[in-house]
Amino acid sequence: MSTAHASRELAQFAAQLRYDAIPAPVVERTVNLYVDWLGSGLAGKGARPVDSIARFARQAGGVGGAAEVLIDRAGASAYFAAMVNAAASHFVEQDDVHNGSVLHPATVVFPVVLALAQAHGASGRDVITAAVAGYEVGIRAGEFMGRSHYKVFHTTGTVGTLAAAAAAGRLLRLDPERMLHAFGSAGTQASGLWEFLRDAADSKQLHTAMAAANGLMAAQLAADGFRGATHILEGPQGMAAGMSTDADPARLLDRLGTRWATLETSFKYHAACRHTHPAADALLAVIGEHGLELADIAQVVAHVHQGAIDVLGNVVVPQTVHQAKFNMGTVLGIVAQRGYAGVNEFEDGYSRPEIAAFRDKVRMVLDEEIDAAYPARWIGKVSVTTTGGRVLHGRVDEPKGDPGNTLSRDEISAKFLRLAAFSGAAGPEEARAMLAHAWELPDQPVVGSVFAARIAA
Amino acid sequence: MSTAHASRELAQFAAQLRYDAIPAPVVERTVNLYVDWLGSGLAGKGARPVDSIARFARQAGGVGGAAEVLIDRAGASAYFAAMVNAAASHFVEQDDVHNGSVLHPATVVFPVVLALAQAHGASGRDVITAAVAGYEVGIRAGEFMGRSHYKVFHTTGTVGTLAAAAAAGRLLRLDPERMLHAFGSAGTQASGLWEFLRDAADSKQLHTAMAAANGLMAAQLAADGFRGATHILEGPQGMAAGMSTDADPARLLDRLGTRWATLETSFKYHAACRHTHPAADALLAVIGEHGLELADIAQVVAHVHQGAIDVLGNVVVPQTVHQAKFNMGTVLGIVAQRGYAGVNEFEDGYSRPEIAAFRDKVRMVLDEEIDAAYPARWIGKVSVTTTGGRVLHGRVDEPKGDPGNTLSRDEISAKFLRLAAFSGAAGPEEARAMLAHAWELPDQPVVGSVFAARIAA
Repeated sequence: MSTAHASRELAQFAAQLRYDAIPAPVVERTVNLYVDWLGSGLAGKGARPVDSIARFARQAGGVGGAAEVLIDRAGASAYFAAMVNAAASHFVEQDDVHNGSVLHPATVVFPVVLALAQAHGASGRDVITAAVAGYEVGIRAGEFMGRSHYKVFHTTGTVGTLAAAAAAGRLLRLDPERMLHAFGSAGTQASGLWEFLRDAADSKQLHTAMAAANGLMAAQLAADGFRGATHILEGPQGMAAGMSTDADPARLLDRLGTRWATLETSFKYHAACRHTHPAADALLAVIGEHGLELADIAQVVAHVHQGAIDVLGNVVVPQTVHQAKFNMGTVLGIVAQRGYAGVNEFEDGYSRPEIAAFRDKVRMVLDEEIDAAYPARWIGKVSVTTTGGRVLHGRVDEPKGDPGNTLSRDEISAKFLRLAAFSGAAGPEEARAMLAHAWELPDQPVVGSVFAARIAA
Repeated sequence: MSTAHASRELAQFAAQLRYDAIPAPVVERTVNLYVDWLGSGLAGKGARPVDSIARFARQAGGVGGAAEVLIDRAGASAYFAAMVNAAASHFVEQDDVHNGSVLHPATVVFPVVLALAQAHGASGRDVITAAVAGYEVGIRAGEFMGRSHYKVFHTTGTVGTLAAAAAAGRLLRLDPERMLHAFGSAGTQASGLWEFLRDAADSKQLHTAMAAANGLMAAQLAADGFRGATHILEGPQGMAAGMSTDADPARLLDRLGTRWATLETSFKYHAACRHTHPAADALLAVIGEHGLELADIAQVVAHVHQGAIDVLGNVVVPQTVHQAKFNMGTVLGIVAQRGYAGVNEFEDGYSRPEIAAFRDKVRMVLDEEIDAAYPARWIGKVSVTTTGGRVLHGRVDEPKGDPGNTLSRDEISAKFLRLAAFSGAAGPEEARAMLAHAWELPDQPVVGSVFAARIAA
């Protein structure tokens, strides 16, 4: 039945995954991804769309409960805590991404896992196991749905629901049959369209909020005996049938249990849409090699894959900080001026006149080599024409944060502290104590408050 | 800008619709649809999938609030009351349907409108106005998405989210701009796949529950300033781009304000999938004309449209009462034996040996005339071969419940009482008092409890 019923095999894998069976490097990476995510969650404090979702949750009944809302430390049901934290952790565009699936796993997996762990008194190892289940399922489902899906759908919204359900189902200890039903209830709720991007609308946060909340709901319903479609991914009226023209069933079970897709996940170094990072790093390479400054640059051609054009092509003149993170010209301008495009650089930089002027010097061009390598590899190439008329070429094969060029724990810690300070979600000392506590995840017998660490510290 | 920005015009219509501008026959029909829906909501009491969703809602924080959960009379937030009542009112397959859009409007519109009205102290006229906004928007959006959409997607789940958002937005008195944002946040959450049907899974209730809940959420978020995509229906990465290959933009604004699509909505007479009704009524015509009984029938060919094959073709041997309602052979067997396929007839009839045997005598055949007329008209044709070898033909041009063959208020009342008795959601006297109260909707200055009527009566 190996290829006959992929959804069932995937469900069985997620349900039966044991901590002891996860290789040590995968555990270590998962802890890194957790700490990285926690920083992104804190960074969402004060963001208008996130505040709206939090207000909605309170009004709808999400007051009180053992799960924590990161942006205001309120107690909530696991459902609403997952919803708000998933909205928060996707806001500053610093959460992780898996290249091959173009899925942001952390922002839909960890909100669910943390909220359920807090509600059910689960251990740090339970969190890690459940998160890995979510990553492995979600990434394969994203790869399965293919490039045609991503052209219209925000995969983290659609497939993210399945990742969340797998993680939630593992934490709730669903048996394989109920895990399969959780997949069915999650997949039939898969949604999220890119249309919002050309309006600078707030849907990106809604997508992650509801992917997490719906995935958690699907698992809780399954625990209660609620039945879902058993072939939700591959069936003739399932997700691929409705939302993909190039789905590849072979990807669903690709080396399940031996290939750890979790390890392939990239950290985001710049606080911008991941599609800008390869070009940004390639530009940094040129600037570093030739000692250029912003004013030295007359023109930049960013050689990109089609997916970058599909997503970034929508934003011509960014109206908000968030939209600016989806504008190639703005990102390259900030990088050229500041050497790094982080949350602070965007906040006080995106609307500066010299950045707006630089924007018009940048254009994207489809590159065959890059497009053929994508999405497995995200190659960056730029051609820079200087004001003096020189044409300089830059290239990176793995942008900073990719698996072969990953962030160290020190770099992740520094990023965490930067994000906590950016939003003011935690003071400097408190943030350091939270960070130390978060690194201890594998040794926590019960995952309690992520903030309580400051008392113990 | 008439055709330039259809979503905006539709949003403006929904936001600015006034009670006084709604023709009297539309008001009258809307009250009929409301009473018809209320009966379906009560009928969902005791259904396992509905109970699961209600338990989830309580666990997630839905305890207490001014909105009523019909199946257990608990108070809840508008969000959770809408979620549970939408699940409940779609369960027995007696809620209304609009032929041209193949949308079930009541089960996603009225749960939202009633819950918000109870939470905000709105009047009966507010309810009617908001409901008409939901019907007019939802039906046009469903027609717009086309037949290709319905082949894979459960339109009541997908487009239902927009219908719910329009209704909720009108009740919350959103201005046109915010209504447009509500559409964006609703449409980007549009989901619901037919895949569940071949497994007798519970997703149909989940689809309506979440269409209502997500639509309400979209409107509440918009009231709070949350922004959505402004071209969510027709944009290049919107609903049609992702989930339809035959979307027709002309349908979105089709005679908006002069054509009242609400009036075109059909009541369900039989408690089965609407795709079975034309053939069921055609068979009843043959049986009536020729005085046949179940045992006289050797074979039935149901001449149908492709949509019926797409949906009903999934169910070969029904495993549950609910799945039996999607099996043409079972429905025709019950109709042949009992003269009517209502909730009680299904409950004690679907698994009888003679009905199971009859099932194998029925087959569906695609009919060109019927398929060409669909979905605007749902023609029924059957060819019946008797055990004596005669071949008899039956035809109905408008199945019972269709606009030209609608249910009278007496018939709607009888159906309401039958459904309340079926589930035991209200005793006989109480149900009569609730019914009398429900008919008074246009005169209610404040819509309170639908149950409190029994005290006043």
